Amino acid sequence: MEGDPTLQLRIFDLNCWAIRYLSKRRQERVRLIGDTLRREEFDLVLLQEVWSEQDYSDLKVKLGRCYPFSHYFRSGVIGSGLCVFSRFPILDTLLYQYSLNGYPYMLQHGDWFCGKSVGLVIIKISGIIFNVYVTHLHAEYCREKDAYLPHRLVQAWELAQFIRHTSKAADVVLLGGDLNMHPEDVGIRLLRGWTGLRDAFAEATRFEGCEDGCTLVPNNCFTVKTELLPFPLGIRIDYILYKAISSFTVKCEELKTTTGTAPGKDIPFSDHEAVMATLLIQRQGQAAGATHSTAELTLVDVVTEARLEVGVGLRAARRQRYSTGRMAVLALLLLLLQALAVLGALVGLDAGQPFPKLSFSLLAFLAIGILLLATGLHLFHTMEVKMLQGTEEQMRMVLQALRERP
Amino acid sequence: MEGDPTLQLRIFDLNCWAIRYLSKRRQERVRLIGDTLRREEFDLVLLQEVWSEQDYSDLKVKLGRCYPFSHYFRSGVIGSGLCVFSRFPILDTLLYQYSLNGYPYMLQHGDWFCGKSVGLVIIKISGIIFNVYVTHLHAEYCREKDAYLPHRLVQAWELAQFIRHTSKAADVVLLGGDLNMHPEDVGIRLLRGWTGLRDAFAEATRFEGCEDGCTLVPNNCFTVKTELLPFPLGIRIDYILYKAISSFTVKCEELKTTTGTAPGKDIPFSDHEAVMATLLIQRQGQAAGATHSTAELTLVDVVTEARLEVGVGLRAARRQRYSTGRMAVLALLLLLLQALAVLGALVGLDAGQPFPKLSFSLLAFLAIGILLLATGLHLFHTMEVKMLQGTEEQMRMVLQALRERP
Repeated sequence: MEGDPTLQLRIFDLNCWAIRYLSKRRQERVRLIGDTLRREEFDLVLLQEVWSEQDYSDLKVKLGRCYPFSHYFRSGVIGSGLCVFSRFPILDTLLYQYSLNGYPYMLQHGDWFCGKSVGLVIIKISGIIFNVYVTHLHAEYCREKDAYLPHRLVQAWELAQFIRHTSKAADVVLLGGDLNMHPEDVGIRLLRGWTGLRDAFAEATRFEGCEDGCTLVPNNCFTVKTELLPFPLGIRIDYILYKAISSFTVKCEELKTTTGTAPGKDIPFSDHEAVMATLLIQRQGQAAGATHSTAELTLVDVVTEARLEVGVGLRAARRQRYSTGRMAVLALLLLLLQALAVLGALVGLDAGQPFPKLSFSLLAFLAIGILLLATGLHLFHTMEVKMLQGTEEQMRMVLQALRERP
Repeated sequence: MEGDPTLQLRIFDLNCWAIRYLSKRRQERVRLIGDTLRREEFDLVLLQEVWSEQDYSDLKVKLGRCYPFSHYFRSGVIGSGLCVFSRFPILDTLLYQYSLNGYPYMLQHGDWFCGKSVGLVIIKISGIIFNVYVTHLHAEYCREKDAYLPHRLVQAWELAQFIRHTSKAADVVLLGGDLNMHPEDVGIRLLRGWTGLRDAFAEATRFEGCEDGCTLVPNNCFTVKTELLPFPLGIRIDYILYKAISSFTVKCEELKTTTGTAPGKDIPFSDHEAVMATLLIQRQGQAAGATHSTAELTLVDVVTEARLEVGVGLRAARRQRYSTGRMAVLALLLLLLQALAVLGALVGLDAGQPFPKLSFSLLAFLAIGILLLATGLHLFHTMEVKMLQGTEEQMRMVLQALRERP
């Protein structure tokens, strides 16, 4: 910051859709992403859905010269898919895995296996401490009947809480990632309201890219066209958000997105568009305070709305906990009944053998199978209830605190 | 802090051993704990193993007058068991669940089901910000062959990282809980070295209680005497740790433990002894800096030692991932073989029926059972490998940074 009082920071954010064996033309696209990043020389690169550690290692080798510092966040069965490349030294990292992330038995959706998380890297540039967060929230598979909304809201809440608690010594906070929420969704409003983060798209002096800043667009050859039918322009679910905490100001000079293909190529980087922001960071005498009273009034509404949705999820989770518990008890009763019948036959209460052996054994195995499965699900939904309750309770506390403020 | 420059803070920490249906004389002991807390009027109460929310609610009702602020941390199937009662307002809370916490199939140990976590509550007293952490790490069931050591080390590391990242705006950091580690264990040295926390027992001006500050002692009627045979005095695994971050100093004026029974009663509070500290907090011109060079030299050794142990765990987890994967493949092969045999019989390749139906079906069910179980375990150990790798990588980064410092 000495000499020139303004620091320019160029950030690249992309959901890479790099699932081994499943994503189309993955290796070609990862190479293309690497080539572009090497050529463009951003300051900071935030990637999601880099599921294969081999892809990360290849990128690391290719980008080693321009981006000597990088970090890959490991979590879940497959990994978090999150990684960061940086021109500046990474001082420290931390990973926070969201407590709720879909259901293990929804194999076709697979989110549960990814261990969705938020990764934090701390970077110091010209004496300014940047807390950089990268994340990927649970996907929305059906907007009309979104069964995952409570889980995504819990994630948005935990993301906001994690940022608030870990960024207190930071000068500037940056968040990039695929939030799987439209700009007006309650989760985004909750995240922005509770952290004070600003949306680079909304704040940008210049914008260039897809209309409305969309990042999932019909003219990207990898998007599923039927899913985008209700949104002819596409949807915006990938974000770069930022705020200054201490005596700095951050301005978004320019925001760009790719527009269905990688620049100068005929294939896209991914099924998502990349988001590229140029931020200007300047030291100033005093941190710019938001107009608290109106902001907090809105925040009360948003937290109330989010809490209602979490409550809906809580009731559903309780129902599932109850029905899986009942199923387990029924299977146990059936097994006990069978055991009694066997005992009866052994002590000679029955004259003949009343059941054919085969169906009797099959029934027993079926009962054992159902018992194990139902017990597992019951435990899972018990955890789900606990986490939803915990979030609702935290939101209640926050609402109370907001209302009590003078 | 105005007028009187010294703040006195009295803290109570106890692992309550309040497991419904399992812990002996639970209700009587919880009542006794509540009565004592009400009479003694501590400033801050940190409890672990309050597994039943009903017990927490009863305590909350009983303590409402002396400790108007409280928080119960929910996680896992059973809950985290962690709660805090405070005379001063709780401004904010956050829960971090450890990424590794034993094995779900070790039902007799049960730690996995508790969702072991660290809870943070932020409290402001006389203008001083206190970050108060309460936690309970994985138990040690066999000191000679401690299969859980790598998991407990990952927890100690995550605890240290969580404290470092969330306490940057705090004036004073307090940590209380059952760490399940002896004072000289590598996990404690790692935690203390990496956070700079000081041990109230070692620093106390006055001490009163069990010899060596032990908190699991043979003359407590609920402890398992055979487990304590190698330690005639008992062991010290419950701690109150503290440090001042900004321009404050903290001194431990007095530390007390109970001595096998609750004061003036013939039964103990729990199978653990309670730890009670009186801290003096004073504002000063400048934060007291540690002698960095020697501290960092020791830290390098401790992190290296911890990383070796994590590496041992990583190799064990990889072996288990491999053997469960092989088991799943074998079960799948057996099923395929059976399917082929059935197909063969259907298209009439076999003249007669070579297998008795019953054992054939039983074998199929057995194979399905093994396939499901082995797949589940394989996924679990894959996650375990990821988290151990992640921790090892983080430790490697820290070691590098420590060595590169001038």
